[in-house]
Amino acid sequence: MAKTMAINAGSSSLKFQLIEMPEEKVIAKGQIERIGLGDSIFTLKFNGEKFENILDIADHEAGISYMLTQFEAHGVIADLNEISGVGHRVVAGGEWYNHSVIVDDDVMAKLEKLIDYAPLHEPANIAGIKVFQKLLPNALAVAVFDTAFHQTMSQENYLYPLPYEYYTKYGARKYGAHGTSHRYISARAAEMVGKPLEDLKMITLHLGAGSSITAIKDGKSFDTSMGFTPLAGVMMATRTGDVDPSLVYYIQEREGLTNEQMLDILNKKSGMLGVSTISADLRDLKAVAETNTHAKLAIDMWENRILRYIGQYIVEMGGVDAIVFAGGIGENSFEQRAHIIEKLNFMGIKIDESKNQVFGEETDLSAADSSAKVLIVPTNEELMIARDVEALKTQH
Amino acid sequence: MAKTMAINAGSSSLKFQLIEMPEEKVIAKGQIERIGLGDSIFTLKFNGEKFENILDIADHEAGISYMLTQFEAHGVIADLNEISGVGHRVVAGGEWYNHSVIVDDDVMAKLEKLIDYAPLHEPANIAGIKVFQKLLPNALAVAVFDTAFHQTMSQENYLYPLPYEYYTKYGARKYGAHGTSHRYISARAAEMVGKPLEDLKMITLHLGAGSSITAIKDGKSFDTSMGFTPLAGVMMATRTGDVDPSLVYYIQEREGLTNEQMLDILNKKSGMLGVSTISADLRDLKAVAETNTHAKLAIDMWENRILRYIGQYIVEMGGVDAIVFAGGIGENSFEQRAHIIEKLNFMGIKIDESKNQVFGEETDLSAADSSAKVLIVPTNEELMIARDVEALKTQH
Repeated sequence: MAKTMAINAGSSSLKFQLIEMPEEKVIAKGQIERIGLGDSIFTLKFNGEKFENILDIADHEAGISYMLTQFEAHGVIADLNEISGVGHRVVAGGEWYNHSVIVDDDVMAKLEKLIDYAPLHEPANIAGIKVFQKLLPNALAVAVFDTAFHQTMSQENYLYPLPYEYYTKYGARKYGAHGTSHRYISARAAEMVGKPLEDLKMITLHLGAGSSITAIKDGKSFDTSMGFTPLAGVMMATRTGDVDPSLVYYIQEREGLTNEQMLDILNKKSGMLGVSTISADLRDLKAVAETNTHAKLAIDMWENRILRYIGQYIVEMGGVDAIVFAGGIGENSFEQRAHIIEKLNFMGIKIDESKNQVFGEETDLSAADSSAKVLIVPTNEELMIARDVEALKTQH
Repeated sequence: MAKTMAINAGSSSLKFQLIEMPEEKVIAKGQIERIGLGDSIFTLKFNGEKFENILDIADHEAGISYMLTQFEAHGVIADLNEISGVGHRVVAGGEWYNHSVIVDDDVMAKLEKLIDYAPLHEPANIAGIKVFQKLLPNALAVAVFDTAFHQTMSQENYLYPLPYEYYTKYGARKYGAHGTSHRYISARAAEMVGKPLEDLKMITLHLGAGSSITAIKDGKSFDTSMGFTPLAGVMMATRTGDVDPSLVYYIQEREGLTNEQMLDILNKKSGMLGVSTISADLRDLKAVAETNTHAKLAIDMWENRILRYIGQYIVEMGGVDAIVFAGGIGENSFEQRAHIIEKLNFMGIKIDESKNQVFGEETDLSAADSSAKVLIVPTNEELMIARDVEALKTQH
């Protein structure tokens, strides 16, 4: 029996789960928000209770140190040495990593080199790893990359039609994201369907504030909607997804913006927020869509952009056996699931509407005569991280 | 019996056809290249003969004037007044024009305002119109817009997930291109299929150095691959097509390029040329693809990007009744047609390989049991322009 931590460190936040392995039982979970911003919020859920403290947490080290103290104070663990492994979500793995790895000096050196690909996230990931190595020197540290699952894409799919030298000089290619989520969803969906993942053509939809869609063939990521960065692909809460680059420059020049300012707009002021002009949250838009044409338009566009990728991937894979919804929107927005699948009725893909009124529950929505399975699989990246730590322990 | 000119003016070139209407008989055609660049080349095909002269043509006025003189010299026409109408291809029509129009002062004023959308092409289009109005004041002048056919797209399809204010302030939306070609191809394909265009779901592929793909539903452009500009969509000879905008900035900053320089690379050094590193011409790449991995990769990517759009459009329209190849590559590259349709076999779309070995000929390639028609329709934008002139004459 081992306790494994799954850590997801952002620039000013840190989410954690403590999981008992191999039982896969969540012992405690929570998060620290507003690290370094004053009035930091520490939240811990344990034994059916929720604890919240507001205090100043200066940096990731202070936050993690406080979290471990709280673990002991609330009896989550009796001794820090009970934590035998820590898995860290790392945003960018580049072309170096196609699976999770035990962190050593070489890995740390490579992570530093990958900062360029994810300047906001990678430094936080590195900080998280360093602090745990200091505070829990005996726990196995494992890096779990968001991009690793997508390293199986063919060059035809991951390369952009740009001068080839940018690929060799700068690693300019599609890396994708949410890989750990797509890996979890697809594995679980195959279990639900009762067939080996390797025998299924699958489209996994991780739909949340950030959204990505992956085509999975032969058990591997075949293509994915996010690109060099998580800006590309489908329309998101505040991100554009795909857009004509000429138009980006056109707007930038007329607005007199720097590259950085324009990128900020594409990432933080576009998507559902930009089109609706009122909110980045689909729930807010749904609440007013009947009378607000902007809100209605934003929802229609959001659904349309998802459909476009589903269409691409069905044709790229030569068919589809299962379409899997996950993520906050995918797991909870039954109207959007219904709208999207309705557009696939012409190919025989149908849901049983009576099964669709569920929220965040593993469900097989497929109509009895559907030509492909339609499933909901609540994603669980933390569990996948803990599993990777467990698997690497045996190799250690 | 009337003689109508179809004019396609570029920044340093001008293509022309003189067509007898309503017989739709091409009397003469040709082009002027290198206008204003010295050693201009004038080419005229008439009565089975080809005439080529090299001389300095300073500007569009001098070129058109020379062309008309040559018409008289070679007996193409006896009198300039035989030319009763001139149709001008105009690249950008914005949201003002959803069909061709007779040029008047209001149209000229609007064309000036549209220069922003096509800074390289629109001034040449305007110059062409002005010169003909001066030299042939009695001929009806008609503007035929590349974007007009696509004005039927829904807002959901033409809007980008950007802040909505950019649409109202700058007209930031998808306009598409090659509209006259897609209109011609789809109308002719419907005739070949023997059904009303309005009853067919169609995907028209205009594949040349510039390529665009259009979904046509209810006889109207439903969605199209080019965007605010002709940079977007599928991979082309030297244009990227779709690419993560973040990556564009990433490269630009590392290479120390201005916006203009970066746009130039995306438009002129990318696509098949960029990936293959050897040529923008598919024929060159095919010639060496067996031994040159870059050439092979460029072809594979080119086919893949087309397939992605076909998949999108099949799902967006809820099916497809006809897939139509046109343009230099679409009409002549039988291997590419075969590769693309092979990937659609899983949906029952198949060609009869024995019918596929044709070049630039109207052909129904469909296998007897294909679930959708697969056609070749050599495009004819000039004829469509002449038809629009003819139609507007009766309204004049």
